[in-house]
Amino acid sequence: MAMKIMRAEQFGITREVEYGSPEQNEAVREIVEAVRNEGDAALLRYTELHDKVSLDAASLRVGDAEIEAAYDRVEPEFVAAIREAAANIRSFHEKQKRTSWMDLQPDGSLLGQIVRPLRRVGVYVPGGKAAYPSSVLMNVIPAQVAGVPEIVMVTPPATGGTEGIDPYILVAAAEAGVREMYRVGGAQAVAALAYGTATIAPVDKICGPGNIYVALAKRAVFGVVDIDSIAGPSEIVVLADETADPVYVAADLLSQAEHDEMASAVLVTPSETLARAVADEVERQLQALPREPIARRSIDSYGAALLVDSLAEGIDVVNRMAPEHLEVLTADPLSLLARIENAGAIFLGPHSSEPVGDYFAGPNHILPTNGTARFSSPVTVDDFLKKSSLIYYSKEALLANGEKIMTLARREGLEGHARAIAVRLEREGAGGSGGAGR
Amino acid sequence: MAMKIMRAEQFGITREVEYGSPEQNEAVREIVEAVRNEGDAALLRYTELHDKVSLDAASLRVGDAEIEAAYDRVEPEFVAAIREAAANIRSFHEKQKRTSWMDLQPDGSLLGQIVRPLRRVGVYVPGGKAAYPSSVLMNVIPAQVAGVPEIVMVTPPATGGTEGIDPYILVAAAEAGVREMYRVGGAQAVAALAYGTATIAPVDKICGPGNIYVALAKRAVFGVVDIDSIAGPSEIVVLADETADPVYVAADLLSQAEHDEMASAVLVTPSETLARAVADEVERQLQALPREPIARRSIDSYGAALLVDSLAEGIDVVNRMAPEHLEVLTADPLSLLARIENAGAIFLGPHSSEPVGDYFAGPNHILPTNGTARFSSPVTVDDFLKKSSLIYYSKEALLANGEKIMTLARREGLEGHARAIAVRLEREGAGGSGGAGR
Repeated sequence: MAMKIMRAEQFGITREVEYGSPEQNEAVREIVEAVRNEGDAALLRYTELHDKVSLDAASLRVGDAEIEAAYDRVEPEFVAAIREAAANIRSFHEKQKRTSWMDLQPDGSLLGQIVRPLRRVGVYVPGGKAAYPSSVLMNVIPAQVAGVPEIVMVTPPATGGTEGIDPYILVAAAEAGVREMYRVGGAQAVAALAYGTATIAPVDKICGPGNIYVALAKRAVFGVVDIDSIAGPSEIVVLADETADPVYVAADLLSQAEHDEMASAVLVTPSETLARAVADEVERQLQALPREPIARRSIDSYGAALLVDSLAEGIDVVNRMAPEHLEVLTADPLSLLARIENAGAIFLGPHSSEPVGDYFAGPNHILPTNGTARFSSPVTVDDFLKKSSLIYYSKEALLANGEKIMTLARREGLEGHARAIAVRLEREGAGGSGGAGR
Repeated sequence: MAMKIMRAEQFGITREVEYGSPEQNEAVREIVEAVRNEGDAALLRYTELHDKVSLDAASLRVGDAEIEAAYDRVEPEFVAAIREAAANIRSFHEKQKRTSWMDLQPDGSLLGQIVRPLRRVGVYVPGGKAAYPSSVLMNVIPAQVAGVPEIVMVTPPATGGTEGIDPYILVAAAEAGVREMYRVGGAQAVAALAYGTATIAPVDKICGPGNIYVALAKRAVFGVVDIDSIAGPSEIVVLADETADPVYVAADLLSQAEHDEMASAVLVTPSETLARAVADEVERQLQALPREPIARRSIDSYGAALLVDSLAEGIDVVNRMAPEHLEVLTADPLSLLARIENAGAIFLGPHSSEPVGDYFAGPNHILPTNGTARFSSPVTVDDFLKKSSLIYYSKEALLANGEKIMTLARREGLEGHARAIAVRLEREGAGGSGGAGR
């Protein structure tokens, strides 16, 4: 089966969010409660049960020697590339930093917004094949740029009796600046980060991807701590005209399709010639791709080349789909940019292949999926900041505005609110003592 | 029973988040599905069932004449006060605006962050006594300042056969700039905003408070649309020393306690003299308060004066509590500001009574509750903006960095990602055609 070619209006995919089975939810609830109540003991018990690794509390933390040893187990090119990627990511995210500000009013009042980093953040890194060093950078560096003083990583020990952690993950975490790492995963790790144990101090926010148990555990502890959004399968839309190279388009579509059978890779084009050429190229390139079975199933189920009458109609289709990644491979991509309303990341022109953003350029690769780019954003430094409002009202301001505040409070039936103002107007108003609240 | 005085370390409140009973969740699920499938018909049916008001689709929308008539039914002082409050809120939130930015790189690449308003936002306004005109302003104005082109309000018709909506709500909405309003409430209104009906177009985000059914419906549609956070009961902490006026402190504590029996009002002070004077004042002022039964239950259950050894210890207590509202009534409040890590809004000095911020000064009164100020923020313009990353990579940048990107991709086992780069290096690299992707 080759990639489908169809009119855009014939295409529709509905992918529901995974909320887990009742049994999975119950299992997670049990683990979270056990860790909340029993701490390290439950953490070690579930690690033995699910990861088949027997640890004691003292060996939960990854030691400095193990981190150093990891550097000897990875290629120097990897270290060099991850270092350069980290520098680019840091540089891009530095530009997102915000500062506290004040607004000084003529009546002597002062209003403001205080911006502070979260105090402690936990980053979950999945084990096995789903452990991506690049995702470690993308979660840790924005937190670090925000100024979060404590960033802690948790990741499951390799299953089956070894305590080891993928050295590439350890190197990426160390390069990103993480010093506190624990070999623990699953719902038990999420519970430990939320509630704390004797060994692992609780955090204010948990981020990072994981399997369904990790996702359900994050949902369960939301409110006790903040969590990041739960990512769906990866998506790419390529908006292209007849000037695009079908070899590039096909390669970029496949770079998403190889992620996951549920991934979606879609071409939107007014050129039927391009659509046919891309479909042929996808088939040709698929045959030599190591992850061909995954990519093929993704292309068969969720892939398509969608024909539109014009690039303007193509933009409408893109905005309705609100893709995680959008590539614009047209003669003049800049002319379309202002009309693109919904996309997690936008890649312009033939040299901006999506992996450029996945690994290296600097912007975050953790992006809104499943059409949520309509209202959600890439991970940014803002996700690790919190704000407080600041109100310093002068006596002059209070005397000038007190009656209006009381009018509004009484209109809402909140006399106590009005009286908090009234007691001050009585003491400090025309007939009052004029003292500064003593 | 008077307000309790105790050492800070003896105080502990645990308030669980309300997730609703299984029956409530099932009722909400049924309503949401019915509106999703049947549209207006279900909307009208549930309005008749729950609000006892029989409407047709044409009368769902509030007409301009009804909005104009509302102005004749409210006091001119109210209109004047709400107008001035709206101007202050607008002015404060204008300072939160953000712009898209670009970073131009020496190698010809261009990275950026595009900031855009959401396209359409729905504001839920509860009916009856919980309808606060001030909350209409606090939800609508940040969206408007963000540049959201379509802001729609929903609010239940008065129950018992009249279609009327509180004129104060209509005036507040009109003053905030809302032109599209519907008389529909409950879970059915939330479902209509999320999925759309023939009469009500779907939105990208739903905000505003409501009863448990509204909260559960918002939770149920989250992911289809964005939602705001679900507010818990109101909280105030007053951090004060011996220079504070116990009359002011007591009045401010009661202004929160009157909101809700679940509200929490706490004094933190190193001065036992102040604590006793405030406890006496709370009792005295309670006796004359219209909402005395509510306020008394709040003070009895969740109120206290907590003694600490020093203001420094007081700050620690405050940071652990992470209150929604914090007043600092000390001789030199500015000297403490930098150490306050967790608070939704901070009110400094004797003239900054909390109702100043609830109604008038400009900062938002929708604030993180239940200790979530550790990681959450007041409602800001950011809540109505979304970001997209922008990547335009130059040929020079791709040639210089392509190999490193391929190293990282292959390390993650993603050969398709590496090949998306490789096909370009082959065509455009040293041995390639040099063409711009054709």
